[in-house]
Amino acid sequence: MENKRTEIANLGEFGLIDRIATGFSNEQKGTLMGIGDDAAVIAIPEGEVLLASCDMLAEGVHFDLAYTPLHLLGYKSVAVNLSDIAAMNGIPRQILISIGISNRFSVEAVDALYDGIRQACKDYQVDLAGGDTTSSRAGLVLSVTAIGSQKPEKVVSRAGAKVGDLVCVSGDLGAAYMGLQLLVRENKVFQVNPDMQPELPEEQAYLIQRQLKAEARTDIVHELAEKGVLPSSMIDISDGLASELFHICRQSHCGVHVFEDKLPIENLTRLAASDFGLSPLTCAMNGGEDYELLFTVAQSDYEKVNQMEDVSIIGVIREESQGKSLILKSGQVVEIKAQGWTHFKS
Amino acid sequence: MENKRTEIANLGEFGLIDRIATGFSNEQKGTLMGIGDDAAVIAIPEGEVLLASCDMLAEGVHFDLAYTPLHLLGYKSVAVNLSDIAAMNGIPRQILISIGISNRFSVEAVDALYDGIRQACKDYQVDLAGGDTTSSRAGLVLSVTAIGSQKPEKVVSRAGAKVGDLVCVSGDLGAAYMGLQLLVRENKVFQVNPDMQPELPEEQAYLIQRQLKAEARTDIVHELAEKGVLPSSMIDISDGLASELFHICRQSHCGVHVFEDKLPIENLTRLAASDFGLSPLTCAMNGGEDYELLFTVAQSDYEKVNQMEDVSIIGVIREESQGKSLILKSGQVVEIKAQGWTHFKS
Repeated sequence: MENKRTEIANLGEFGLIDRIATGFSNEQKGTLMGIGDDAAVIAIPEGEVLLASCDMLAEGVHFDLAYTPLHLLGYKSVAVNLSDIAAMNGIPRQILISIGISNRFSVEAVDALYDGIRQACKDYQVDLAGGDTTSSRAGLVLSVTAIGSQKPEKVVSRAGAKVGDLVCVSGDLGAAYMGLQLLVRENKVFQVNPDMQPELPEEQAYLIQRQLKAEARTDIVHELAEKGVLPSSMIDISDGLASELFHICRQSHCGVHVFEDKLPIENLTRLAASDFGLSPLTCAMNGGEDYELLFTVAQSDYEKVNQMEDVSIIGVIREESQGKSLILKSGQVVEIKAQGWTHFKS
Repeated sequence: MENKRTEIANLGEFGLIDRIATGFSNEQKGTLMGIGDDAAVIAIPEGEVLLASCDMLAEGVHFDLAYTPLHLLGYKSVAVNLSDIAAMNGIPRQILISIGISNRFSVEAVDALYDGIRQACKDYQVDLAGGDTTSSRAGLVLSVTAIGSQKPEKVVSRAGAKVGDLVCVSGDLGAAYMGLQLLVRENKVFQVNPDMQPELPEEQAYLIQRQLKAEARTDIVHELAEKGVLPSSMIDISDGLASELFHICRQSHCGVHVFEDKLPIENLTRLAASDFGLSPLTCAMNGGEDYELLFTVAQSDYEKVNQMEDVSIIGVIREESQGKSLILKSGQVVEIKAQGWTHFKS
């Protein structure tokens, strides 16, 4: 691949914004005005409430450009925000993206970033409705605001889990964490170059894809709606299952029992964990960045949820006084500890 | 002032979020759920559309902590975003704030930042409804999303100016730019310390305040509504009057004539400009960061707008073919050039 480099300064801020806006088309009929004015103008579907969430991704903290292709970073920055809307049982509609970039980055690098953002917009049928583009003294910072909507009675918070409810999780756990371990180990294989977009290694491609190309489980939101299941509580798994169970228990004032043998862990994840001398259970409980949905449903919804192919029933909600326990395959009961990822180190 | 320093790592991310959330109360009845879940849940007033805007402020690019007290930075980060909602003739309702901070900052510094954010929320009656708090490898980055609403027929874009419309501006121009010049000159007087909150010097306090404590002119939006004036186009002046006139002319397909002797420039601005060997006219046209509103109204609204104390009528919209001209006091006609501030330097 030829490594063409055009300086952002050559385009200027307005030139850059025009270039970014090209190739984005609005699909949501609620997007009345998108990029190009002081604010986006958005019609929320009648009878629905607005859901709004924002996240910041910073270079060196949330991603390392040595092994993160820019288009996948763009994709992931959108997906992880839409995941927050899905976690409220909402339908994502629009996004706004602010980026801060240093002059270490070329116009081609910005193009790659927005290629991924554009792909995510297409895949999730959301419109890029606004944002900001600015210079940054140090590295790349992305801030994404996701806008969604839902009927107020269908909005699902973290606070509604009831004793006896079934605890469910979509997809599989721990793979993104193992993907990160692989990438960190292979770090030196890739050149450090912000314009570079390393190819994914064939080996362990699933794990690496789970790390680099996060997906928001909006499909699960739609499937639950089709089946007529309204979760009593829901959260997305960004910091690890254990940490998210803590959030649900804290906000729903309940305890939980989770069964080790019910946790969805792929064989590839188990193999990689063993290769690194890690426990697959630890990866699944505390790995983070799975972006799967953790939700609770009434026992009366058991049949419906049990039919969902990509959903596992992993436990049951208990009284708060019964604590938060993991029942191991051996029958041993251990207390769940939240060891969510923290970005703040002293 | 005792310079207490508590490390953010001692609190952890959740501790920090809890600390931030303290002291914020929701005033907007539309804020159904604020901080503490995956997304904010917001009811948009019936019959109104959502307005959404976001901006990023990066250390070393948009602010210099050597002379920017953190509480004023927090205030300004909110105000400049609400200014975008005002520029659409909208009423701001909620904000979401993501911050990236390095461990150079203490908990006390974060407190100061959020003190300013809290004050702005109070002054503008908006709710802090969500956000993200993360570590950053380099300095402080703030990303604010402002959410507002308005009846669709009352939303004012940049695109509606008609030939013959009067060009109006709120407040005065160029003062924030002169404030910045003063601060840059006095830079060495202040210690570089992220925890420090320098006192404003008494001298030239107005100019420095205009730079450090930007205000969104939501009052003008309310006053226009009270008088029954709906502007034909509107924009806020963040990059300088000339640059904003260009946006209006480009998006409304028109030209403009502006009269030098009508431009609202404070005597303090003129004095400071003279002190720095600058032309007050240049400061007013290209200074930036005024965060005043530039808008156009039909000639039939002349009486109403003329009665508004803090609004000046500075020109008239012309045919696109007549270009963009500044009529000097001498009668000389000069072409307006947009020299908006650009953050991208090669």
